[in-house]
Amino acid sequence: MYKERIRYAPYLNRVMDAEKAADFIKDGMIVGASGFTRAGDPKAVTLALAERAKKEKIKIKFWTGASLSDEVDGGLAEAGALSHRLPFQATRSMRDLINKGEILFTDQHLSLTNEWIRNGVMGPIDIALVEAVTITEDGYIIPTTSVGNTPIFVDQAKKVIIEINMAHTPLLEGVHDIYLPEKRPGREPILLKTPMERIGTPYIKVDPEKVVAIVITDQMDVPSNILPADEETKIMANHIIEFLKEEVNQGRIPNSLMPLQSGVGTIANAVLEGLVHSPFEDLIVASEVLQDAVFELFKAGKVKFAAATSVTLSPSWTKELFENFDQYRDKLVFRPQEISNHPELIRRMGLIAINTALEADIYGNVNSTHVAGTHMMNGIGGSGDFARNAGLSIFVTKSIAKDGKISSIVPMVSHVDHTEHDVQILVTEQGLADLRGLAPRERAELIIEKCVHPMYKDKMREYYNEALERGGHTPHVLEKALSWHQKLRETGTML
Amino acid sequence: MYKERIRYAPYLNRVMDAEKAADFIKDGMIVGASGFTRAGDPKAVTLALAERAKKEKIKIKFWTGASLSDEVDGGLAEAGALSHRLPFQATRSMRDLINKGEILFTDQHLSLTNEWIRNGVMGPIDIALVEAVTITEDGYIIPTTSVGNTPIFVDQAKKVIIEINMAHTPLLEGVHDIYLPEKRPGREPILLKTPMERIGTPYIKVDPEKVVAIVITDQMDVPSNILPADEETKIMANHIIEFLKEEVNQGRIPNSLMPLQSGVGTIANAVLEGLVHSPFEDLIVASEVLQDAVFELFKAGKVKFAAATSVTLSPSWTKELFENFDQYRDKLVFRPQEISNHPELIRRMGLIAINTALEADIYGNVNSTHVAGTHMMNGIGGSGDFARNAGLSIFVTKSIAKDGKISSIVPMVSHVDHTEHDVQILVTEQGLADLRGLAPRERAELIIEKCVHPMYKDKMREYYNEALERGGHTPHVLEKALSWHQKLRETGTML
Repeated sequence: MYKERIRYAPYLNRVMDAEKAADFIKDGMIVGASGFTRAGDPKAVTLALAERAKKEKIKIKFWTGASLSDEVDGGLAEAGALSHRLPFQATRSMRDLINKGEILFTDQHLSLTNEWIRNGVMGPIDIALVEAVTITEDGYIIPTTSVGNTPIFVDQAKKVIIEINMAHTPLLEGVHDIYLPEKRPGREPILLKTPMERIGTPYIKVDPEKVVAIVITDQMDVPSNILPADEETKIMANHIIEFLKEEVNQGRIPNSLMPLQSGVGTIANAVLEGLVHSPFEDLIVASEVLQDAVFELFKAGKVKFAAATSVTLSPSWTKELFENFDQYRDKLVFRPQEISNHPELIRRMGLIAINTALEADIYGNVNSTHVAGTHMMNGIGGSGDFARNAGLSIFVTKSIAKDGKISSIVPMVSHVDHTEHDVQILVTEQGLADLRGLAPRERAELIIEKCVHPMYKDKMREYYNEALERGGHTPHVLEKALSWHQKLRETGTML
Repeated sequence: MYKERIRYAPYLNRVMDAEKAADFIKDGMIVGASGFTRAGDPKAVTLALAERAKKEKIKIKFWTGASLSDEVDGGLAEAGALSHRLPFQATRSMRDLINKGEILFTDQHLSLTNEWIRNGVMGPIDIALVEAVTITEDGYIIPTTSVGNTPIFVDQAKKVIIEINMAHTPLLEGVHDIYLPEKRPGREPILLKTPMERIGTPYIKVDPEKVVAIVITDQMDVPSNILPADEETKIMANHIIEFLKEEVNQGRIPNSLMPLQSGVGTIANAVLEGLVHSPFEDLIVASEVLQDAVFELFKAGKVKFAAATSVTLSPSWTKELFENFDQYRDKLVFRPQEISNHPELIRRMGLIAINTALEADIYGNVNSTHVAGTHMMNGIGGSGDFARNAGLSIFVTKSIAKDGKISSIVPMVSHVDHTEHDVQILVTEQGLADLRGLAPRERAELIIEKCVHPMYKDKMREYYNEALERGGHTPHVLEKALSWHQKLRETGTML
């Protein structure tokens, strides 16, 4: 019944199988694909391309919204089909190739990719490869469970390939709000004042002449695999709730808080979920990705609206959302990631941004991306867009990892994604450090006291005291600043 | 003749000498002062306070727009009058006390201080201490050569002390555009689309009841002491001009470029000055501080308008500007630093931001503030506001310092103010590296090739090759990453 989903007749004779559509993609091309954290990625042409790459030499530059599923990103990486990748990924096999230097990965603020495509810095997009739920009467595209960078890819691409995914509910039509800022100079203000307003269209406009292939698919997004909350994430959530209660008491924010952003992954999700047991009401979510916690908060009557660029849920919440989509659709909006992550809006709305740190140091610098300063995990994602411009910028991490072999708080982070200037609140299960307005020496005292695990506290004080003897605004013993990482590398533990 | 400058009669009997006005300031108070890079700082009450602090125990928390003159910042610091200082400073004696930990200094993005004062995080402002050129009929304040954070200090302070500075031309009235965003939630978009528009008032509104003292002064701002362009800064300017010409050729920006921001200091000023010999016309400056180069560009007919939060010139350009102020006043606007540095506007207008790096590393991370990772120079200032949100983010530094004992390009910066994600173009006199869209390994190759001084090139390749053997997305040899700084500390040279 795919014909009901294609309301623009001229496309009907462009329907073909994925292998044939994939033939439009040639070696060296730049392909811009839909998809953001697994949601709404093209699931057929990508895999057909991966198959082809096993047999012939074809390497493309692959731009997306964010990470795609392991099947797609992993399939393409393992087949050797990618020379370049941006702006985010989260698949083991791709990561391995990135860390070997075999795939050149550009780790970008997710609000920025659009700007660089718009002005041609990232090269001309040869093919836009886009998952859709429906085609409108004008041949325009209704995206599925994410918007990501799809509108700019479609706008700039020479050719467009559309996968109509029958597994997605057609009720998705109307949920999207597609708006892109103009090329500069002459750009207008983005007139959203709350996440609940709409300023765009429900479809992605496309010149129908550019659409060279339509492929019919029928496979849901790969569900998320985030872990449930545990004792420690519950404690971290409580630290944040207590802190926010005090902010409300001080009159700095209302009891409905400010729009909430929470990073992708288990810990940020679990912390957000903790708000189910908070006194806050009428919450609004303005995030990059809607994860399980947002729908738990909907169910608990805590959240009244959620805006994002994608939705990525575990199997049970996927079922809940899509079997009852009519109950949710008026409370949701999906936007391009340029808008969900836009500095202008994040600053104006004063978002509360909760993101995960891989490690943090005693002065409040945060590493979100690099294991031991060298090996890429996933990428900075939107954390920089949000942390820099938010009303409250909160970073969370468990104080130790690998049974204590690793301290997540270190003397000096081995890679900086968020500088001391952008990290306002640091939270571990040990406590919460409110760093706002503090000098580095004040921050160090507070982070050691509140955030460091007891098994590393003495060792950290020893480092800091030695650093104090050297002096400086931000005291360090440079030859020992990265010694914890060196020890981990040599002995398997920082202890 | 000061009575002509005070058009609100009730203030006339609040005129008093600086010593008496300074008595309103008590130990432990938070004082918010006008002034931004020497321009428009309060020159009398501050020095009277410094005199008092030599005799009695008085320590205040001192918030400003940015650095004040050496006389004022140095005077207060040396007298022991300051316990805390934010958000920027540039005076040797103050810096020494900061690095000893005797003054607690908070180094902030200059657009952010306002937000934290507005919502009470930085504590209640006890006294606003403000230089004015004129008082309006309603008792409102016409600021002098800077706006800085003055409007929020005046708005939030319990008491206001005004210095009427007779040395400033009354023609300054009408040059300022005072607009502050509302407290969140409910904030409106900031509707400036170009730096030339106006959205505010020419005065700073104040409740006249709060004004407890008026002090009459008659001393010009301390002029700037930036050095003239030299051979190397001329070469750097040429690299940037060639790069911008190519951007124009590619159709990414018009021949009038985009609004130009240039950081404070000799190198950024000299680079901007180089545009006198460029093919670009009808330039607009949208910066934090207007330095000599902007007026050279005005004289050369290259610049048609300049917006900033302050103006700080050498003696000769001070003379040129203020003796011919009627020729310039329609081409100038001074705004609060929250607006001049606002992410919303910087991103919308696609500014070209040119800022100075203290050091940069082979992956494009930049240190703007900390000598050897520990000792504060001046502060991050607005460089983070601009670099993060600009259309083009350019960092400049000479490739070596101290006759080659220091390489400004190092394997790993000892402190990160601007991450690899925010540094698009890196320029030394050796060359220009366009890092946009590149993976770290590509960036390292380019920076070593284009930016490193020949005397350090082999040494850097050696480091990088060893790092490559270790692997990773961002290869490093952690135990050697900071070894150049260690060597400098131990032997006096990185060589």
